[in-house]
Amino acid sequence: MNPEIASPVPQTPPTHLCQPFQVQWQHRLYFAQNVFSLTSSVLPDVIAFDPLPARVLVVVDQGLLNAQPQYLDEIIRFFQHHTAALTLAGPIIQIPSGELCKNDRRYFDLLCQALHDARLDRHSYVLVIGGGAVLDLTGFAAAIVHRGVRLIRIPSTTLAQADSGVGVKNGINAFGQKNFLGTFSPPWAVINDEALLPTLPHHHWISGFSEAVKVALLKDSAFFDQIQHHAPAIAQRHMPPAVAIIRRAAELHLRHITQGGDPFELTRARPLDFGHWSAHKLESLSRFSLPHGHAVAIGLALDLVYSELIGLCTPPLANQVIACLKTLGLPVWHELLTHTEPLLEGLEEFREHLGGQLTITLVRNPGESLDVHEMDQSAILRAVQKLAEIAST
Amino acid sequence: MNPEIASPVPQTPPTHLCQPFQVQWQHRLYFAQNVFSLTSSVLPDVIAFDPLPARVLVVVDQGLLNAQPQYLDEIIRFFQHHTAALTLAGPIIQIPSGELCKNDRRYFDLLCQALHDARLDRHSYVLVIGGGAVLDLTGFAAAIVHRGVRLIRIPSTTLAQADSGVGVKNGINAFGQKNFLGTFSPPWAVINDEALLPTLPHHHWISGFSEAVKVALLKDSAFFDQIQHHAPAIAQRHMPPAVAIIRRAAELHLRHITQGGDPFELTRARPLDFGHWSAHKLESLSRFSLPHGHAVAIGLALDLVYSELIGLCTPPLANQVIACLKTLGLPVWHELLTHTEPLLEGLEEFREHLGGQLTITLVRNPGESLDVHEMDQSAILRAVQKLAEIAST
Repeated sequence: MNPEIASPVPQTPPTHLCQPFQVQWQHRLYFAQNVFSLTSSVLPDVIAFDPLPARVLVVVDQGLLNAQPQYLDEIIRFFQHHTAALTLAGPIIQIPSGELCKNDRRYFDLLCQALHDARLDRHSYVLVIGGGAVLDLTGFAAAIVHRGVRLIRIPSTTLAQADSGVGVKNGINAFGQKNFLGTFSPPWAVINDEALLPTLPHHHWISGFSEAVKVALLKDSAFFDQIQHHAPAIAQRHMPPAVAIIRRAAELHLRHITQGGDPFELTRARPLDFGHWSAHKLESLSRFSLPHGHAVAIGLALDLVYSELIGLCTPPLANQVIACLKTLGLPVWHELLTHTEPLLEGLEEFREHLGGQLTITLVRNPGESLDVHEMDQSAILRAVQKLAEIAST
Repeated sequence: MNPEIASPVPQTPPTHLCQPFQVQWQHRLYFAQNVFSLTSSVLPDVIAFDPLPARVLVVVDQGLLNAQPQYLDEIIRFFQHHTAALTLAGPIIQIPSGELCKNDRRYFDLLCQALHDARLDRHSYVLVIGGGAVLDLTGFAAAIVHRGVRLIRIPSTTLAQADSGVGVKNGINAFGQKNFLGTFSPPWAVINDEALLPTLPHHHWISGFSEAVKVALLKDSAFFDQIQHHAPAIAQRHMPPAVAIIRRAAELHLRHITQGGDPFELTRARPLDFGHWSAHKLESLSRFSLPHGHAVAIGLALDLVYSELIGLCTPPLANQVIACLKTLGLPVWHELLTHTEPLLEGLEEFREHLGGQLTITLVRNPGESLDVHEMDQSAILRAVQKLAEIAST
């Protein structure tokens, strides 16, 4: 008997199947003080442990250890105190601060090796404490080893606590491009520990507030009023208003991810990137000597002056925001803005990283944003000129 | 006026926020014949193009080019014919077949460089045509460049068409471990082109049917009957029943991903990995000279004999499946099974890759699976012995 005759193959099978499916995550954001004090229960609470203690590989930013030299001992004591719940899966790893660690492939290789040597599995944890660059690098390694081990971030800077540390992205630089390699990978949890902030160098301290201004302008005019109001106190490093503002920025960021409808940026717009096309370019032109938060302040100022010039936002807004940024102690100008050809290349690089059509988010009024798909290059150059004048007064 | 007094900070802020969120994808699986014949509309249909033609970087498995030397010219002619919709973003890249390409980091670096040089963005396409290893490697590069460019897979083997090419995983080997680095990244689309199958070397031709047997045993007893029935014809490379069986296996795989509730394997069980703990270990012990599909056949036979020995499945099942695998021309035995110590290490490595508690999926009856959390090592050794006897008869 010919088996092909016995069970005939269907004659008109469908030519394709198209099935939607979804993946569900939890975004967990904790606000804490002194995570590694022996009485703090945040970390054991965050870790859903088996009968066996959770295995945790710890990665720390050297910048934090320079500012708080006792920090390593505190971590070790904390793990010794919580042996029933937590165990160190390997030696604590130190990574140098800033973009350097994302540029030099050796740090990435070192982390993959460490995750391998610690025999981490998909239910183990990488706990990383540091600024945005160290979080990005470590998060990328954690995201791809075994297709993802659990990542807990403790952002140690205002910038990372307000913005990137709360997000779902990671990455390293390659071929001279920022975040050329990376993934969208929700962390297991993020813990914003305010005790890490008082020892920040001042340029790091102030850096996160430009992202707070950004998210306020995009989403919440009352929050922008609040930042304007507290700007002098923040510049003087008063903790309570600063912590409240960072917390609000983190909450808005989390809400955007969880309720914005496109956490993995599968569609075109990237609405949190207001002011970022020129910021990214200025960072790279400065060989990353310009901190991200400072570059964002300049990028916001430029896009607002541009918006005013093309009649998109009403005149007082640009001046108001620039005054607020200056009061905070943030720059609104950099000589590299006058390098107009490379600056304008930043627009195309921004488009390329996002893909598809250029989409730039601008702000008409605080809390009221809109997307545009082209920018007038001559108006950008006039905006640069006008910003130079404003900045020099 | 002290701004801290003017706008008091809330006294009892929440200590944490926990927000669920989800990401939605489409799984698109096309069944086609001769995708690059000039009259085929599948590829233009699959690509959602802008007013501008879609930019596509093509990666091809050298094994396929050896079997079908005209294939490169067909691709080039096809793109020349469809310039309104499609454009080649760079030279066509050739990658050698098999695990070699996942072991040697140079191929990964070469692909990242090629994606960079082609200036792909997140709305461009990588189109990869090849066996599972080339799909895994290329998919990994595509998943992490710019945090993911769109990937279209045209699996060229029975194994990739029935199983891995339809999935959401990618990866490369590192530190001697299979898929140590990788991601879960849904492809833009998968196109199973049956015209790629007739020229497969015989050991590749037969390789995919062990995964068909596996998924039939896990999910669909009627499908297992169908495979048993058509096994002699498949061994003789009759296309219609073979294509129908590969299609059904792919559909069951797709249904598992889209309706199984855990496409990114965030929980413990990995129910499609029946027979795979020993298969993975045998592959690595053989230094990947044992093809994956053959290793899976042996792994299925071993786990079924084991299940029979511990009384978990009824006696005829193991013999029935072994007879079916043998009729297909698949092996059910390998000398490396007698290396019992490294074999049993495979259990721990399997646990480690998945994380958490050991979970092994076994089958009680066709279509009826269950998870166990330990395996009796002495019973495994007796199963090896019994399998040796069965295989020699």
